[in-house]
Amino acid sequence: MSVRRVQVIGIGAGSPEHLTQQAIAALNEVDVFLVAEKRSATDELVALRKAICERFIDPAHPYRFVTVPDPTRGVDADRADAAYGEAVRDWHAARADRYADTIDALPEGAVVGFLVWGDPAFYDSTIRVVRSIGERTALSVNVIPGISAFQALAAAHGIVLHEIGEPVHITTGRRLVTEWAPGLGTVVVMLDGHLTCRDLVPLAPDLQIHWGAYVGMPQQELRAGRLADVIDEITGLRAALRERHGWVMDVYALTSPR
Amino acid sequence: MSVRRVQVIGIGAGSPEHLTQQAIAALNEVDVFLVAEKRSATDELVALRKAICERFIDPAHPYRFVTVPDPTRGVDADRADAAYGEAVRDWHAARADRYADTIDALPEGAVVGFLVWGDPAFYDSTIRVVRSIGERTALSVNVIPGISAFQALAAAHGIVLHEIGEPVHITTGRRLVTEWAPGLGTVVVMLDGHLTCRDLVPLAPDLQIHWGAYVGMPQQELRAGRLADVIDEITGLRAALRERHGWVMDVYALTSPR
Ligand SMILES: C[S@@+](CC[C@H](N)C(=O)[O-])C[C@H]1O[C@@H](n2cnc3c(N)ncnc32)[C@H](O)[C@@H]1O
Ligand SMILES: C[S@@+](CC[C@H](N)C(=O)[O-])C[C@H]1O[C@@H](n2cnc3c(N)ncnc32)[C@H](O)[C@@H]1O
Repeated sequence: MSVRRVQVIGIGAGSPEHLTQQAIAALNEVDVFLVAEKRSATDELVALRKAICERFIDPAHPYRFVTVPDPTRGVDADRADAAYGEAVRDWHAARADRYADTIDALPEGAVVGFLVWGDPAFYDSTIRVVRSIGERTALSVNVIPGISAFQALAAAHGIVLHEIGEPVHITTGRRLVTEWAPGLGTVVVMLDGHLTCRDLVPLAPDLQIHWGAYVGMPQQELRAGRLADVIDEITGLRAALRERHGWVMDVYALTSPR
Repeated sequence: MSVRRVQVIGIGAGSPEHLTQQAIAALNEVDVFLVAEKRSATDELVALRKAICERFIDPAHPYRFVTVPDPTRGVDADRADAAYGEAVRDWHAARADRYADTIDALPEGAVVGFLVWGDPAFYDSTIRVVRSIGERTALSVNVIPGISAFQALAAAHGIVLHEIGEPVHITTGRRLVTEWAPGLGTVVVMLDGHLTCRDLVPLAPDLQIHWGAYVGMPQQELRAGRLADVIDEITGLRAALRERHGWVMDVYALTSPR
């Protein structure tokens, strides 16, 4: 069987305005977009992907979406135990099997596309899944970077992420409290369903937070200030937004004042 | 005097294909692009900026480039002493004065643009300079994120930057060796004129490197492997490239095998 071309396309973190020239060119090469079976909370995000295709793909270029059933996840992203990594890897393998079967059933020569939220390099499993698929069926993979949530956050607040000459550390809510130390520089936190930064207030009372929900989207909300002063407001707002919209996605950056 | 609109536009890390939809829209609003007086090695990069404007700005929209003289830097980026940060800040203030004077001399209503390499949030002084200018003359600032060098690097190698559930640490060559620790996760290094990662070989013999020079540009070179095995080749290649092209820009990511 011939080598199948695959485009892994970063679509940015919520705004179609994040699409790059190379993402648009890649979209226009794809014949079949593979999508994981959608889970309920993300209908709006599925709709955004379709809107991006409608807006940026030449009407003369036919394409279709093929849904690949998602193996039951069985992994709770908040689990802090050592089995977490292994459970995630098992789930990736099962998903790769299904994708490989789906790809093998496509017509010869069809170009396959994956639309990836933000940048495929950050906290997204697509590249790992595609690598596993490539162990099952021959692929030639091209990756297109995209604007990540933390970049949209920084731009929306008009801030730089590094202090002069200092580092930027990007981590998850699950790791923040054990990992945090002043020497890390600016700490960006993704995938934090619990605003775990609250637990840093006693450790570092002067931390500053730049927070954003639905960054780049019509519902965007931004807050910034001394963490100790604004964490209650952000917690309340986050709960209210989740209630109002049915889902919420947020990201934040913590800096120590110099 | 009225509030002056300023667009700080991330143009990506070397390829016009990195331009986002919102960057293109912002380019088309700018009347005057302010550029620092060019230093010799960067002629090619100045040319790239002009090419981006020519390609993406509607021919019916007039714009011009205004060069602002750069105060003599007097700061050696390799200096590791405590005076480094202060010297950088003085230099920023002097530059802000000159930009404010230049902006005040522009016609009423002119929209000002700054083209920023990569993403304005990472290792670029434009946002800080614009903030200082804003202390001198009233500005309304809009920031557009761009594809950063480390994102172009990850995409070119087809890799994710985080290990599953783990962090990504972005730092500079000046800090790498003192800062490095296994718990940092994947370490991305920018602004490293000396491939200081060589000094990590004795500390962490199994580190893997993904390296790229001129990523996204026609001269792009990529190398990857066990740091101990490939550092000599990369060092030689980097020197040869610098010799051949007159300048070199490179970035790399270090990961510990699990
Ligand atoms: C599974 S990760 C995907 C990250 C994505 N690959 C990226 O580069 O942005 C999802 C996390 O990204 C963050 N995120 C993504 N889009 C966001 C947005 N528009 N506003 C706020 N946070 C966002 C949230 O922290 C969320 O928990
Ligand atoms: C002053 S910093 C600017 C970073 C920029 N704001 C960004 O987001 O990429 C310059 C450093 O970025 C990296 N860099 C920028 N463009 C690059 C490219 N096309 N290839 C390799 N490295 C690049 C190099 O490490 C260089 O020393």
